[in-house]
Amino acid sequence: MQRAPDANMTWAEWFHGRRALITGGLGFIGSNLARRLVALGAQVRIVDAALPGSGANPHNLDGLEHQVEAWRADLRNGEVVTAMLIGQDVLFNLAAQVGHLASMEDPVTDLAINASCQLAIVEACRRVAPEIRVVHTATRQFYGRTSGEPTDETHPIAPVDYNGVSKRAGELYHLVAHQVYGLRATSLRLTNTYGPRMRCRDGRQTFLGEWVRCLLKDEPLLVYGDGMQVRDLNHVDDVVTALLATAASSDTIGQAYNLGGREPIRLVDLAGLMIGLAGRGRIAHVPFPGARRRIEIGDYLGDYTRIATTIGWQPTIDLRAGLRGTLDFFETQREHYL
Amino acid sequence: MQRAPDANMTWAEWFHGRRALITGGLGFIGSNLARRLVALGAQVRIVDAALPGSGANPHNLDGLEHQVEAWRADLRNGEVVTAMLIGQDVLFNLAAQVGHLASMEDPVTDLAINASCQLAIVEACRRVAPEIRVVHTATRQFYGRTSGEPTDETHPIAPVDYNGVSKRAGELYHLVAHQVYGLRATSLRLTNTYGPRMRCRDGRQTFLGEWVRCLLKDEPLLVYGDGMQVRDLNHVDDVVTALLATAASSDTIGQAYNLGGREPIRLVDLAGLMIGLAGRGRIAHVPFPGARRRIEIGDYLGDYTRIATTIGWQPTIDLRAGLRGTLDFFETQREHYL
Repeated sequence: MQRAPDANMTWAEWFHGRRALITGGLGFIGSNLARRLVALGAQVRIVDAALPGSGANPHNLDGLEHQVEAWRADLRNGEVVTAMLIGQDVLFNLAAQVGHLASMEDPVTDLAINASCQLAIVEACRRVAPEIRVVHTATRQFYGRTSGEPTDETHPIAPVDYNGVSKRAGELYHLVAHQVYGLRATSLRLTNTYGPRMRCRDGRQTFLGEWVRCLLKDEPLLVYGDGMQVRDLNHVDDVVTALLATAASSDTIGQAYNLGGREPIRLVDLAGLMIGLAGRGRIAHVPFPGARRRIEIGDYLGDYTRIATTIGWQPTIDLRAGLRGTLDFFETQREHYL
Repeated sequence: MQRAPDANMTWAEWFHGRRALITGGLGFIGSNLARRLVALGAQVRIVDAALPGSGANPHNLDGLEHQVEAWRADLRNGEVVTAMLIGQDVLFNLAAQVGHLASMEDPVTDLAINASCQLAIVEACRRVAPEIRVVHTATRQFYGRTSGEPTDETHPIAPVDYNGVSKRAGELYHLVAHQVYGLRATSLRLTNTYGPRMRCRDGRQTFLGEWVRCLLKDEPLLVYGDGMQVRDLNHVDDVVTALLATAASSDTIGQAYNLGGREPIRLVDLAGLMIGLAGRGRIAHVPFPGARRRIEIGDYLGDYTRIATTIGWQPTIDLRAGLRGTLDFFETQREHYL
């Protein structure tokens, strides 16, 4: 039975010996989280379907083969959902279809993974793991076009693509299950996350991964249009800290929180920064593909005051250092990620 | 090819000869809409799966057997969705799982009908009927607990049950498809609707139907708790007018609108009014069943200024007259509805 950490226990200590389940654990954020949990002494189970086009990469857990219980299984199978939860203390719910363009091309799969599976998970929690602590991951994308003003959690939800619809439904299932059944769930709304183990083969997970690939393969970094949109970014290590600190705090239960970055940057400047750090590369401006233009959100800057106030989380890794480390990682691991 | 009515054409005239499709057309609102459309000279096709527990009642279309093309078919079948749309000018999208308690008991079906089917519909419109005019019906329920202040369309969406999650997703699919593909869709957020042809066998569709049944069967009208919650009500004829006027106005495309009533009333007073009009009956206060209490929204009063300003709709049927006519209808038709 899990308890909130008492006054003499840090959240890091709270995870020692705890059983933690990560959906999407072979993916970018999930695998970084698994590594940190193992280091904290948690018993980690990951579940991942390793779907083509997803962030799953078997090398993401290299070296942890004997320390993580890995299930290759699809959450669209209800029996998997029930079985995976039994005996777990904490669920980090990271499995998702995150591609915006992909959601427009295959909206049925997008809805199945981001809403139907999430419903199955909260219902299964109610039945077989009613005390489990759940940290769900959502996205700032469903705020839609925010005009770039700092966006807090009270901003209207106005998704511009099908992915925003399904991700919002998945978040709401968690929040309703909290209200009605007392599910101990929190939702974190992530912004652009980057760092080691992100998908670099293409831009399906993040444009940053694609840019890393272009740098390493001496191809130009494609910038759609003028690239003047402002975005905020989080290093994956800061996101992992947010996931852990949220799980260990009962003050966050039943709420949704933005994450966010401290150093907003225009996309074209970000490309320039990466080129500078890599010591090579160039930018190619290309017209916005129509399908992307129609779902483009423009400037975005997340206001993360709520989580900072509640549990003291804030991003700590500066963009320059974070990108430098990311490039170094992929330089040495290129055969596994390109 | 449909056009907005010109300055010399009323919206009623606009429907003459037009091909109108109604999903859920055997149900309460759908059948009343079908009747009005036939009277306006439209060519009406209805599609209804007549699922057990739904509002479908074959007697709802009594007398129209030769004037309405009726398909008994399930929207969860993608081929039905595509086929039904071909050649249609207007879609009134009324098929839904509307039960709040039912959504908690069978959330998978609720999601399938209210979100997955709606996604299939907007995607099929894009492919086979890109010019079709769509009026989707949503619910004020997804505003959640509003504290009874007049609630307009900018109120945060905070559903208290799974039905609110799925209905919101269904609405958002329409609005996103408008933004991305130009789907000519409008969403109306209905409040409590009452009138002839509502489901009276039980409270699955509306508590008002159940109260009518109790009156006609000389059973007490059950009021949960003190019944002091304020609600607004719309007579189905006013709702049908809103659906038609919305479809005929291109000014409403891409928007969502509240309907709402002019005479907010406490539930216990509503029960008393119905007893007075019927000249018989009694109230029995009973404790709130736990499952209902957990999803109860409290006071609600919809602000319908936006639709009033845009197309001039407002409710016209006063509650007393509307209830009187409703009771008369079910008195004479009791063998078909009880």
